[in-house]
Amino acid sequence: MNITPRPRLEVCLSPALLHLYDTTDTVVVIIDIFRATSTITAALHNGARCVVPVASVAECISLGEKVPGSITAGERDGKVAEGLQHGNSPLEYPSAFVQDKTLILTTTNGTRLLHMVKDAHEIVIGSFLNLSAICDYLLASGKNVLLGCSSWKDRFNMEDTLFAGAVVHHIGHAFDINCDSARGARILYQAAGSDLLEFLKDSSHYLRLSRFGLVEDMKYCVTPNQHPVVPVLKGMEIVIAGK
Amino acid sequence: MNITPRPRLEVCLSPALLHLYDTTDTVVVIIDIFRATSTITAALHNGARCVVPVASVAECISLGEKVPGSITAGERDGKVAEGLQHGNSPLEYPSAFVQDKTLILTTTNGTRLLHMVKDAHEIVIGSFLNLSAICDYLLASGKNVLLGCSSWKDRFNMEDTLFAGAVVHHIGHAFDINCDSARGARILYQAAGSDLLEFLKDSSHYLRLSRFGLVEDMKYCVTPNQHPVVPVLKGMEIVIAGK
Repeated sequence: MNITPRPRLEVCLSPALLHLYDTTDTVVVIIDIFRATSTITAALHNGARCVVPVASVAECISLGEKVPGSITAGERDGKVAEGLQHGNSPLEYPSAFVQDKTLILTTTNGTRLLHMVKDAHEIVIGSFLNLSAICDYLLASGKNVLLGCSSWKDRFNMEDTLFAGAVVHHIGHAFDINCDSARGARILYQAAGSDLLEFLKDSSHYLRLSRFGLVEDMKYCVTPNQHPVVPVLKGMEIVIAGK
Repeated sequence: MNITPRPRLEVCLSPALLHLYDTTDTVVVIIDIFRATSTITAALHNGARCVVPVASVAECISLGEKVPGSITAGERDGKVAEGLQHGNSPLEYPSAFVQDKTLILTTTNGTRLLHMVKDAHEIVIGSFLNLSAICDYLLASGKNVLLGCSSWKDRFNMEDTLFAGAVVHHIGHAFDINCDSARGARILYQAAGSDLLEFLKDSSHYLRLSRFGLVEDMKYCVTPNQHPVVPVLKGMEIVIAGK
């Protein structure tokens, strides 16, 4: 008889709810499917030395001037922000471009949540691009898990919730779940079926980003397991875990 | 060609997210299925003169001493709170008991959200017990609608979300919906099927309340259309709309 208590798994649907969760001794997964955490995962797998998430465009510019071999990136309203060099698309960072570079990235939602988590055991970066790698990592860690959706300006969003639901669907059995958000996310993921982009077509973020011509971007962001690495925050830098 | 813009329909999943929504010129539906809004609806339909929602047990006792023909009610941890006369179950308020009485009610979550909404066009009380009446009322009002889930201490809960989803399922077609919470709630309601109590059996609130022996209570609270009235807030009192 196994009497070891299973670790806890919870889902936080918005940064505005983060204070409700105990993140000590917990691995927090930051989720911003469209598109910060997808881009971070792709850039690191494609060889970036590290990603430095920063809160503002000004901070991004300032840090870019100090760090040799760096790329500054970030968008506001679907366009490269003034003063920065590149955008917030995972497709912009192939190996030939990003290899050994430091990507300094500012985004509207994802970097904000990441900076709000203060006392976690560890902060890792989740996206459909590294879904299985994240699931394996969380199972192996044996720690409590909080899946943190970056949302859109604190509003619940469907794509982040679907990713949380995918994780619960795949590895929830190994955790103690007393969290309606986790159960709801799982049911939404299961209702979505295999064509996630089709399911997202009337979601707020799809409608917003498709107006900026970013459908191919979104399609890539919901394609599972293209970049099987686990990005983890070490000090100010996000690097690949175990490297 | 009808060019009148449709009113907006949104769902707020937690009182901690209320600040994200514009409630001016909006009918706000307060939802606390287990059990404040179910109890308010039942008591009014069974003949209570009005319901006065108050924030604390102390306020409930104090007001009860001043109002002739009043009943003080409220629970903490599944029991009648010390100093109050009755609990927070819709089954406790049949006509023979509640007729012409003023029910002064304090609850953990539902009354709190109700007091947080400051500038709505109107505040009404929704539950499965008056689902169709609420839907008809919202359609007829022609106003923007915010479905406000009371949640559990600001955490997303399944039963309030299912009710919001039921409303979106039934009357969403008449509204402009650009709100992932509304879409998510609808999909969860549709996934739940006809046996809502069965669907809720691993939800946090079901597990908590069933430990207090309140399964019959919950069963009643998810039975649609037992009390076809629309409770509305007028000053400090909740009364039946149109009476």
